[in-house]
Amino acid sequence: VVAQKIVSKAEGRYVDLAKVRPSAHAAALAAEVGKDSRLVEVILAESRRVVRTKPGVLIVEHRLGFIMANAGVDHSNIDPDVGAEPVLLLPSDPDASAAGLHKRLTAQFRKRLGVIITDSWGRAWRRGTVGVALGVAGLPALIDMRGRPDLFGRELRVTQAGFADEIASAASLLMGQADEARPMVLLRGLAWADAPAPGATLVRPPEEDLFR
Amino acid sequence: VVAQKIVSKAEGRYVDLAKVRPSAHAAALAAEVGKDSRLVEVILAESRRVVRTKPGVLIVEHRLGFIMANAGVDHSNIDPDVGAEPVLLLPSDPDASAAGLHKRLTAQFRKRLGVIITDSWGRAWRRGTVGVALGVAGLPALIDMRGRPDLFGRELRVTQAGFADEIASAASLLMGQADEARPMVLLRGLAWADAPAPGATLVRPPEEDLFR
Repeated sequence: VVAQKIVSKAEGRYVDLAKVRPSAHAAALAAEVGKDSRLVEVILAESRRVVRTKPGVLIVEHRLGFIMANAGVDHSNIDPDVGAEPVLLLPSDPDASAAGLHKRLTAQFRKRLGVIITDSWGRAWRRGTVGVALGVAGLPALIDMRGRPDLFGRELRVTQAGFADEIASAASLLMGQADEARPMVLLRGLAWADAPAPGATLVRPPEEDLFR
Repeated sequence: VVAQKIVSKAEGRYVDLAKVRPSAHAAALAAEVGKDSRLVEVILAESRRVVRTKPGVLIVEHRLGFIMANAGVDHSNIDPDVGAEPVLLLPSDPDASAAGLHKRLTAQFRKRLGVIITDSWGRAWRRGTVGVALGVAGLPALIDMRGRPDLFGRELRVTQAGFADEIASAASLLMGQADEARPMVLLRGLAWADAPAPGATLVRPPEEDLFR
């Protein structure tokens, strides 16, 4: 399990706010939510649309379909040397980044392994951030339980478990969020029967979604 | 970490659908979502209000403030002997249930420990269920990071981590959802500095909430 931040850094996903010229739309939205208009410009460029706003909060649909705050554009734990006012974007394709890491790690260690690139997100209805899986390779992002029996032989009502998201949350307990400097966690002993599937399968399609 | 289901069973939170008389409102809503009208009656009795519906889906605000499907009323893994058509409700007060377990386990083992009562929930925008913390005792449901520095001394933007929810998701990886019959998981080695706080602190108050 690898933190999004070190993947983004390795991929050079920096933007220097000092060089950003905000559009009129970004400036108006920035005034509404009380954020830097150049930061809002960067967030909008990473997004398909704005989902919800209130002072201090800007929830968007990221270009990859994630509903999240600030399109994942982040100030924290960024080395000030990389620009005058640097911010960091999500990896351009987290599933591809995970697949690349998976390929190299599998070649190196010759073991069956999975790679998850994680971030910490706030949630609707619940306080506090939790780890989520942005990119997944070598393991199933979801575990399908359709048709599996319960203890008394009754078929299960709930059909899919968010396997990679639960792994991301487990790893997040150990990674921390502040100055822990622990951007990777190795989990051993997990088993799965389902075929590998990327993190994109965790994104609920708009037509299934009741909260957009 | 203890599964909600065994706590509910220990507390006798069964309702026999065979004895439920649905109201006209429950019958109309049941027709809309394609569910048993007696089940919908039980769900509504556990809820403050209906949040979203579509065929097959009934999202409510549970009387404890949780936004969740079916108010947690569940058919699976229930012994058919307890009634003609038994369903199981959430514990009436999961934080009180956790506190009771915490008191007895602390007296028994004379160790610093925490108790979390968990359930598996679907989420907005993401496919797949993840473990969440319903009741918490002896540990902080949220970890407050306000004012903590990042690696470069910059104050953190994100202020709270959903500690108990992340523990619930980690435990869920081991508990499973079907016929695993593993309703408890012991985690060792986790540390925290914050004061204990109940699961109720994880519920985002309506006035902070953008998705109700």
